[in-house]
Amino acid sequence: MFQDFNVLARPEQGPPRLAALRQELAREGLNGFIIPRADVYQGEYVAPRDERLAWLTGFTGSAGYCIALANCAGVFVDGRYRTQVKAQVADDFTPVDWPEVSLGQWILDNVEGTGVIGYDAWLHTVGQIETLEAKLQGSGITLVACDNMVDRVWEDQPDPPRARASAQPIEFAGEEHGFKRARLASELVHKGHRAALISQPDSIAWLLNIRGSDIPRNPVAHGMALLNDDATVDLFMDPVKLEDVADHLGPDIRVHAPDLLLKLLVSMAGPIRLDKATTPYKVAHALDTAGIEIQWGDDPCALPKACKNPAEVAGSVEAHLRDGAAMCHFLHWYDENAETGITEIDVVEKLEQCRRDTNALLDISFETISGTGPHGAVIHYRVTKDTNRILTSGDLLVLDSGGQYRDGTTDITRTLPVGPVGQDEREAFTRVLKGVIAISELRWPKGLAGMHLEAIGRVPLWQAGQDFDHGLGHGVGSYLCVHEGPQRLSRLSDVPLKPGMILSNEPGYYRPGAFGIRIENLIVVEDAPALPTGDSHRDMLCFRTLTWCPIDRRMIETSLLSDQERAWIDTYHETCRHVLGPRLPKEVQMWLDRATAPL
Amino acid sequence: MFQDFNVLARPEQGPPRLAALRQELAREGLNGFIIPRADVYQGEYVAPRDERLAWLTGFTGSAGYCIALANCAGVFVDGRYRTQVKAQVADDFTPVDWPEVSLGQWILDNVEGTGVIGYDAWLHTVGQIETLEAKLQGSGITLVACDNMVDRVWEDQPDPPRARASAQPIEFAGEEHGFKRARLASELVHKGHRAALISQPDSIAWLLNIRGSDIPRNPVAHGMALLNDDATVDLFMDPVKLEDVADHLGPDIRVHAPDLLLKLLVSMAGPIRLDKATTPYKVAHALDTAGIEIQWGDDPCALPKACKNPAEVAGSVEAHLRDGAAMCHFLHWYDENAETGITEIDVVEKLEQCRRDTNALLDISFETISGTGPHGAVIHYRVTKDTNRILTSGDLLVLDSGGQYRDGTTDITRTLPVGPVGQDEREAFTRVLKGVIAISELRWPKGLAGMHLEAIGRVPLWQAGQDFDHGLGHGVGSYLCVHEGPQRLSRLSDVPLKPGMILSNEPGYYRPGAFGIRIENLIVVEDAPALPTGDSHRDMLCFRTLTWCPIDRRMIETSLLSDQERAWIDTYHETCRHVLGPRLPKEVQMWLDRATAPL
Repeated sequence: MFQDFNVLARPEQGPPRLAALRQELAREGLNGFIIPRADVYQGEYVAPRDERLAWLTGFTGSAGYCIALANCAGVFVDGRYRTQVKAQVADDFTPVDWPEVSLGQWILDNVEGTGVIGYDAWLHTVGQIETLEAKLQGSGITLVACDNMVDRVWEDQPDPPRARASAQPIEFAGEEHGFKRARLASELVHKGHRAALISQPDSIAWLLNIRGSDIPRNPVAHGMALLNDDATVDLFMDPVKLEDVADHLGPDIRVHAPDLLLKLLVSMAGPIRLDKATTPYKVAHALDTAGIEIQWGDDPCALPKACKNPAEVAGSVEAHLRDGAAMCHFLHWYDENAETGITEIDVVEKLEQCRRDTNALLDISFETISGTGPHGAVIHYRVTKDTNRILTSGDLLVLDSGGQYRDGTTDITRTLPVGPVGQDEREAFTRVLKGVIAISELRWPKGLAGMHLEAIGRVPLWQAGQDFDHGLGHGVGSYLCVHEGPQRLSRLSDVPLKPGMILSNEPGYYRPGAFGIRIENLIVVEDAPALPTGDSHRDMLCFRTLTWCPIDRRMIETSLLSDQERAWIDTYHETCRHVLGPRLPKEVQMWLDRATAPL
Repeated sequence: MFQDFNVLARPEQGPPRLAALRQELAREGLNGFIIPRADVYQGEYVAPRDERLAWLTGFTGSAGYCIALANCAGVFVDGRYRTQVKAQVADDFTPVDWPEVSLGQWILDNVEGTGVIGYDAWLHTVGQIETLEAKLQGSGITLVACDNMVDRVWEDQPDPPRARASAQPIEFAGEEHGFKRARLASELVHKGHRAALISQPDSIAWLLNIRGSDIPRNPVAHGMALLNDDATVDLFMDPVKLEDVADHLGPDIRVHAPDLLLKLLVSMAGPIRLDKATTPYKVAHALDTAGIEIQWGDDPCALPKACKNPAEVAGSVEAHLRDGAAMCHFLHWYDENAETGITEIDVVEKLEQCRRDTNALLDISFETISGTGPHGAVIHYRVTKDTNRILTSGDLLVLDSGGQYRDGTTDITRTLPVGPVGQDEREAFTRVLKGVIAISELRWPKGLAGMHLEAIGRVPLWQAGQDFDHGLGHGVGSYLCVHEGPQRLSRLSDVPLKPGMILSNEPGYYRPGAFGIRIENLIVVEDAPALPTGDSHRDMLCFRTLTWCPIDRRMIETSLLSDQERAWIDTYHETCRHVLGPRLPKEVQMWLDRATAPL
């Protein structure tokens, strides 16, 4: 099993650790210290040694901060985690609604008089520190970069991971890394940038066609890189991790120990391009101090990585067919067992087994969300031995999962009934489904971004006075991170959608304390075919569906669907039968025929 | 008649005037001079004395620039006017695609070596001059503020308008100007602004509950004002115009001659709040030179003016019923006469007569657009004696018009058939109608802006590969400008929609050289009622329709409508019958019954 169900932290672990930290702060003359969830890479998953926030506070969410002062300690969490944090931290910690309350404002409100707040300059981006400094300006409270105080008191802190990286075969990568480097270097030359810092492990993985396993779920190797304007790369990564890929990397990639990054950087001629959203403050400060010019700009890998090439799209298509067949195995089992007293954990275990049976599963792409009844309304629910719930007739099960395969990353959500379910649930499910269909069928003129289109998937819920509090879709990598930028189907995203971008299409509906609903397919942007009625001068885009897996017919209130929506479902199910059937044994095929019958 | 059909300018007028201007430039030692369409108020309509661009070049569009150099003269026009400009200017002028080509870039490309370009600092905003200066920096080409060179050579230039202003009765304004001033002044106090410059005539009109008639179509009086933090106003306006409103204004409004504005400003203590998008460069420069602090911020009237109070909404409702009844008179006449050889001008004249027959029409709210056949595809078509076209069987007529009434401003578009029309036309019309319905029926959570919602009105066209090149809707004033900010239903607008905002809902479709289609109703934002299915914590908004007037049933391809869309049309028409019928004579009522029969 990739997934486990252990309780990762206990509230009672926090207070003694907080006391030790406070002693250390007093010794250093600090009035406080900031502990972010993020590691140096600002990613969603971190290595065990970087789980500082969970170690100190007990809070295990994927984003947040703690600010430890002498007399209080705020734990900043966003809307997804407000219920969870209360259960996870002891009374010594005060949950804070973030970003409604900013770090700076909270410090101003809680530090009396003047003071010095320490932070680890590797773990904060330039943008974060600039915002915080601006807020504190003139208050008499100052920020100071210092050693990591948590690391000082964390006696059995694990070592950094040293997992070996592997090459991503060209049949899946689609472009040799030499071509990628040359393409990006020519952009650097054009802009007059001497080199660009690549601080995101998934950007390095894409650029060099390597994959790693330093952290769970995201197949990346921790490290940083400099892409030079001559298309060579200086790669700062533990050489042990690269032993299997030396030939693959070749002579244009110079490998250095990670701690040589700053030393090399300050010896270079500028300008050096840095991404304000991800570069550690430490790096920018070192360049500034050395008088080397910084040019702010996007990570040059971000957009090309997002626009999948034909080989990557073909890989994703195949990964989704494999994953869809595994889902059918699971759903067949589910229909026979849902009312036999199985638990949320049983569901996760069976589903992972079905994916493992493909003999191609390299990891799950995130912790499977398996939430019944009120757990379904917890958007990021992770089942543990403590929370595990037996499936009960009348409940819904929200099942959000995915696999990491060499040819692609999947992410799928289905909402399943346990026995007969209520009319409210079925109507809300059908409205969520109407949103999925509206996005799936969309065509739009080139140039638009998620912020312009996302509402189209929400209208059916809005018309009933309902909505949901997460984005409609996120980018997805190609055997890389299941959450990948820069594109999103979100009202916050102004990145124009481009052919090859893979996104999730996942509207939902959540009734706290009662039930949750989410339906999720992955889709890929492509050029829309010309239409007989269309204007020949309109360049338009559309989505092609990647995910094939039946959507539970028992949950659909057919009377709420238009003829066109009904036809979409029937066609979707017909395609499922057609593309998945040949991959399934007879008895699952028979299940599939029933599950995909016309409405 | 308010509208006339004269040709406003001829291409042949331009060259001798350009020659005279060039002589004047040479005398002043200038290499060029910039002539904007805008007047000092940056509005859409300008007084005859401010028609400098049309006088010099022959181009009569509502936006644009000319840059006259010694050997060439560029005329910058946007997408709406690219065909028109070619017909209106002589060969001495070179049309330039703007904003694709910026003023600065064109100057760099067309001025050889160094040079000095003059401009009238009253006619350009701070934002415009800053952008231009940034572009020219280091090029050896400099900008210099100077007298208006066009005014020097325009011998029979008209005088500024001096029309008398009137008070807007409290029953329509809904709030005494003393309360408005106090409300806005308290915001100035809160922000530490000593005063705010109000340079927009419609903002002054709203703030002081006055209306004017200095220019056609927009019932405003030209002038500027300073709103002080003690809630008094210094009003810079020709006192002749204010003779009828002295008592209405009262002692808190101090009237000064317009040319005293700068003198008073430079004697004040700062900070003074200016709006970068509208304040003349001249004003900001004078403050800068005098060492008075400037605070950049929005025109404080803009948002409160946009959010109509209950009296303004009630006025608009009544104005629309009156206007809708006048439209019915017109449409009844149209149906009897469309195929009798009438012209586009006949249509404009009859429609204006129907509005005049209400005995309440104070002006039309813009030049009626009456375009048949290919003229319908010219989004801002204005018919003249030269272009006037006879209505021909098979044509469509795009008829976009509105009235200025004391209680409200209307703006309505209907697309009418001349005899039987083609299937392509009817299908496109029906898709445009589906967009109107989607917006009309929308509910959405508070906080969203036009950029998030506009696409919803375009989806039916997109699905057929079609689109249109203008925004879906603009703000509308309350017996004020028919184009009013800051809200818009546009992918460019990030202003959250708020209750009381009046907008147009006007998708369209244009096939160049063939036909045009547009359907437009005005709508007002209001709080959405709770729904039985809805989440009680979701604060949602919706639109209420203001415009009641039949949508031509002969143009609707019913098979393309969903049941819900069909029900919307039938309900809309039933309401038209109900609210307009009692206002109409028997024969028009009978026409209305037929025009509003269920589909």
